[in-house]
Amino acid sequence: MKRQLGPSDAFFPVPAALIVSGIEDKVNIITVAWIGIVGSTPPTVGISLEKTRYSLEIIRKSKEFTVNIPSADCFRETDYCGLVTGRNRNKFDDIGFTPNKSSRVNTPIIEECPYNMECRVTQEIVLGDWVLILGEIVETHIDVDKVSPSNRAKIDIPKVNPLVYCAEVREYWALGKRLGRGFHAGKEILQRTKK
Amino acid sequence: MKRQLGPSDAFFPVPAALIVSGIEDKVNIITVAWIGIVGSTPPTVGISLEKTRYSLEIIRKSKEFTVNIPSADCFRETDYCGLVTGRNRNKFDDIGFTPNKSSRVNTPIIEECPYNMECRVTQEIVLGDWVLILGEIVETHIDVDKVSPSNRAKIDIPKVNPLVYCAEVREYWALGKRLGRGFHAGKEILQRTKK
Repeated sequence: MKRQLGPSDAFFPVPAALIVSGIEDKVNIITVAWIGIVGSTPPTVGISLEKTRYSLEIIRKSKEFTVNIPSADCFRETDYCGLVTGRNRNKFDDIGFTPNKSSRVNTPIIEECPYNMECRVTQEIVLGDWVLILGEIVETHIDVDKVSPSNRAKIDIPKVNPLVYCAEVREYWALGKRLGRGFHAGKEILQRTKK
Repeated sequence: MKRQLGPSDAFFPVPAALIVSGIEDKVNIITVAWIGIVGSTPPTVGISLEKTRYSLEIIRKSKEFTVNIPSADCFRETDYCGLVTGRNRNKFDDIGFTPNKSSRVNTPIIEECPYNMECRVTQEIVLGDWVLILGEIVETHIDVDKVSPSNRAKIDIPKVNPLVYCAEVREYWALGKRLGRGFHAGKEILQRTKK
């Protein structure tokens, strides 16, 4: 039995990513849940911002931004960056986070976030009161202590402990149990259906 | 200390959503991790599919699709729908899922998925080997037993138990602990920084 809730943007599970824009002493952080990979050749991320956002002004000028995945421990700092505007405040100072030099863009990454992506804007698409910004991912960073010791290239998810958000429902969650491997867990069904 | 991993589409946490396309006996299911809300006015979702995908052919004809969020229990079924093509198989039959009548589109939703969104295609954007399909969310459905008894409109996340995916790392996860409320958890920092 289903209940209809009408047209809604309730969606989960999603990241609560911290988007940094701007350079040097004019940097800002905004929290976005409307974010996702939109293509892999080249790796490209899409973030949606309301037209009125200060971060949108900055990104339109600089044509770059960074995506920073906070750990679950930082859900309060993450929420704060979505509560206030950066027009008159430095949110890095407010939450005690550190801007770190990026490799390929001028906009910094956040030291305290375990996973970071440097992005260059390739396209923007206006959608009602929102603007979808597409950015090519030109570099990624992981904390050195959050890579599996057995596999130098593999991100250790329990160590990263990424924050999860359920949008519209407005809840922050941590991950619980690892269930299985992608492109593997379904192979049992594949064997069965082949017969 | 950070390690650079190069340009990468590693991203997490994301949904592993089941996209249904087609009508009547010609329906297909594909698993997508490249999905996110792209605008709220009107509610609009973006899904990215490789150009070669069978589901893309179907969606381009029908101009509609449904998004179905599986519960963590169904990680094997979800993985299976990403492992095989629907060109010569009926994946509903393979995994024992039931197509349910939608309200506003002709493409069915999946009965066994606790949360479902009916979508009408509004735009497509070609990005390298991928196509980003935007769809207006015209209706949403939730299992009646997964709404908070205290709040008729609130989705009960522990009951939904949504499946989480970490892309490129290729891991399925369940949610663990609820940490706090969105647009609320950061208020403590807001009080402090106001001083």
